[in-house]
Amino acid sequence: MSDTVTMDQIVSLCKRRGFVFQSSEIYGGQAGAWDYGPNGIELKNRIAQFWWKEMTQLHDNIVGLDAAILMHPRVWEASGHVENFTDPLVDCKKCKTRFRADQIPEESLKTKTCPECGGELTDVRKFNLMFKTNIGPVEDGSGLIYLRPETAQGIYVNFKNVLQSNRMKLPFGIAQIGKAFRNEIVTKNFIFRSCEFEQMEMQFFVKPGTDEEWFEYWREQRWNYYKKMGIRMDKLRWHRHGPEELAFYAKDAYDIEYEFPMGFKELEGVHNRTNYDLTRHQQFSGKDLQYIDQDNGNERYLPWVIETSAGLTRELLMVLCDAYEEQKVADKGNEDDYRTVLHFNPIFAPVTVAVLPLMKKDGLAELAQDIRSELKEDFVTDYDQSGAIGRRYRRQDEIGTPYCVTIDYQSKEDHTVTLRDRDSMEQIRVPRDKLSLAIREKMKSYKRV
Amino acid sequence: MSDTVTMDQIVSLCKRRGFVFQSSEIYGGQAGAWDYGPNGIELKNRIAQFWWKEMTQLHDNIVGLDAAILMHPRVWEASGHVENFTDPLVDCKKCKTRFRADQIPEESLKTKTCPECGGELTDVRKFNLMFKTNIGPVEDGSGLIYLRPETAQGIYVNFKNVLQSNRMKLPFGIAQIGKAFRNEIVTKNFIFRSCEFEQMEMQFFVKPGTDEEWFEYWREQRWNYYKKMGIRMDKLRWHRHGPEELAFYAKDAYDIEYEFPMGFKELEGVHNRTNYDLTRHQQFSGKDLQYIDQDNGNERYLPWVIETSAGLTRELLMVLCDAYEEQKVADKGNEDDYRTVLHFNPIFAPVTVAVLPLMKKDGLAELAQDIRSELKEDFVTDYDQSGAIGRRYRRQDEIGTPYCVTIDYQSKEDHTVTLRDRDSMEQIRVPRDKLSLAIREKMKSYKRV
Repeated sequence: MSDTVTMDQIVSLCKRRGFVFQSSEIYGGQAGAWDYGPNGIELKNRIAQFWWKEMTQLHDNIVGLDAAILMHPRVWEASGHVENFTDPLVDCKKCKTRFRADQIPEESLKTKTCPECGGELTDVRKFNLMFKTNIGPVEDGSGLIYLRPETAQGIYVNFKNVLQSNRMKLPFGIAQIGKAFRNEIVTKNFIFRSCEFEQMEMQFFVKPGTDEEWFEYWREQRWNYYKKMGIRMDKLRWHRHGPEELAFYAKDAYDIEYEFPMGFKELEGVHNRTNYDLTRHQQFSGKDLQYIDQDNGNERYLPWVIETSAGLTRELLMVLCDAYEEQKVADKGNEDDYRTVLHFNPIFAPVTVAVLPLMKKDGLAELAQDIRSELKEDFVTDYDQSGAIGRRYRRQDEIGTPYCVTIDYQSKEDHTVTLRDRDSMEQIRVPRDKLSLAIREKMKSYKRV
Repeated sequence: MSDTVTMDQIVSLCKRRGFVFQSSEIYGGQAGAWDYGPNGIELKNRIAQFWWKEMTQLHDNIVGLDAAILMHPRVWEASGHVENFTDPLVDCKKCKTRFRADQIPEESLKTKTCPECGGELTDVRKFNLMFKTNIGPVEDGSGLIYLRPETAQGIYVNFKNVLQSNRMKLPFGIAQIGKAFRNEIVTKNFIFRSCEFEQMEMQFFVKPGTDEEWFEYWREQRWNYYKKMGIRMDKLRWHRHGPEELAFYAKDAYDIEYEFPMGFKELEGVHNRTNYDLTRHQQFSGKDLQYIDQDNGNERYLPWVIETSAGLTRELLMVLCDAYEEQKVADKGNEDDYRTVLHFNPIFAPVTVAVLPLMKKDGLAELAQDIRSELKEDFVTDYDQSGAIGRRYRRQDEIGTPYCVTIDYQSKEDHTVTLRDRDSMEQIRVPRDKLSLAIREKMKSYKRV
């Protein structure tokens, strides 16, 4: 397994094979936004479904939620985003370039000199990262509303609703997958940092005083989640927030970082958010958000919150980088010696089974179509009858299809087909009526190469 | 089956049982937006997954896409939305009420008299329904960008990308599920018309001249889709757009309408959009969007488009209304005579299996927890040990759980449990090790009562 995947290789594959396109590309592109192509959305859906199942279905005391992107503007006053969710910016009066003040040399800032052209810099301004829009027919600002910059607040404002409707008892969690928007001045590293992105967040509400043990529990859970995904664990590490990084309301915070082509970067945060958010929402809304602890003499208190906050689009980028290999598979001295292969865990692969007739003629195509029809109720399938069989395998390798079923002349005679494994490239013959079972068995016994 | 469900009953159940909450409710609510609670998001996910599987996995020549909400502003010039996506509004200068000009009496409009207070009305103004925001650090309008008012345009601008990356041949379709936003002045009928909503759209690209047959094909397909969902077909009807309703670029258009509590309303549109959108995007982007027909001497043309455009949130409302019943189940002269039950098709139910120990004591709770653990890898489960068993059944009926597994004293002796059917309320005894299979069999043989 080569360890030297570059971002250029990923970007190129993503466009070529329909994983990720630039948003509005025919209009020159919309910065900060990305479109997920046929293979990209299948991959994204499977990662989201994996997370959702892990967090809700397999976890007895976590339920889901899906709050709107458009929330009442007071939410963001309570959360502190209106006041604090800002980047410091300076402009060059001469060349008009705009910089994040924390990303240019201190000397430039002190002397107010543009690091690009030497012109004079403006004072540092606070720039709020929330997108604003206006709801209702007048544009006088009375309908000011924000696109949510994080999904977590949707969970906090629904804490009481979920508690009551689903009769939850502490400790319990609320999980949510959804889009969030940040007007990032510097978007970079492909889909890693964009203005429109997707979060997978879970807020776990606990009795005060039990937060430290639950914090440790969730650190362990979230680490094991990546193991279960089949990610190379030597690519992951913990980063604990130092005093300067820690949000003022947080008691403790760890990030899980993955070694992307541009280095170790945050994938997910496990944060002890104390009772800050519920306290603020109780204060700003005037509603009692206390939990009534029926097991302890109806004691009333605001729960503390352990948050696990992962980026869906970042996990997708991780899965792509983690799976990518340019592999030497022959030694003939030509380009066929190499293949690009995505070693996806089969549960994430956009296409599970590709059905390929060796030839179009002699009824092989019809037989292959028949077999595809049988498989497609249970698996996401692809069908490809054009070009040499070797090239068709290569195309499937490039999108990470774990299994190729080839229909050849023998298939017509003895009702067997070949089943090719993406990683080993080995083929076995399988009776047609055992094919579905054989694929299932292979999926179950899958091991990362 | 009672046919008299009211919107009030649905709204009340939705809040009480965690299907739908008002957005930002603790702040007095955000008009036009709704939050989906634990049961609502499970239901929404299952409907979305059903549509996705029907349209992509089970359809050989349709692939998925997930375009960004933030698109280049030229997209909406090309699509005609900047110019035409407007409502006509008038204000009363005296009482300040705002009206849609097409929704007040013609007489009021002619005499410029407010229908509420008799004050003077303003001239009719065009009000564009697209939400505007600003991307980038300056707010001088140079970063003007819209929240997409429909998902379809994301498909058109990616037509060439998908064609090339996935080597598609006509006819083929691109399917997408995603949020869209419209600054509706009048939001009403609960989640039926809101400012933030979700669409499930498929654009099917065909050779010019073949559009009429594909239009008929898709009308039939989409009708059958609701049959397969298990919707009461007498609640559905076709509505063909008359000359006044038909969009100026459309050749023909039919809506599928469902009889909601407020009457028959549009659920989905099947539209022949001609080659209007691709023509406009080709013109505005300057990019060649023609298809090269390799099977016909490399003939070049812009495909025509048959669109199927459904509302996910509307389908969710339909599924709720269609399933709702207040049913008389006994004749004791008290409130226990009635139950509220949601007759969901089991594939849509938020919870598939509820596990209920008859008593907490004598090890029944532990045994029930064990059984739940066995089931939860394969099914979405719930566990409830509090209150009388009858009341627990009622709670599950109200969220449409098709199967309740009850663990009683006999279970400890002979390793059997009871399996209760939501609709018939009949219970059968099933060996514990056959439980999973029995549930699967019941799901397969499910028939709407």
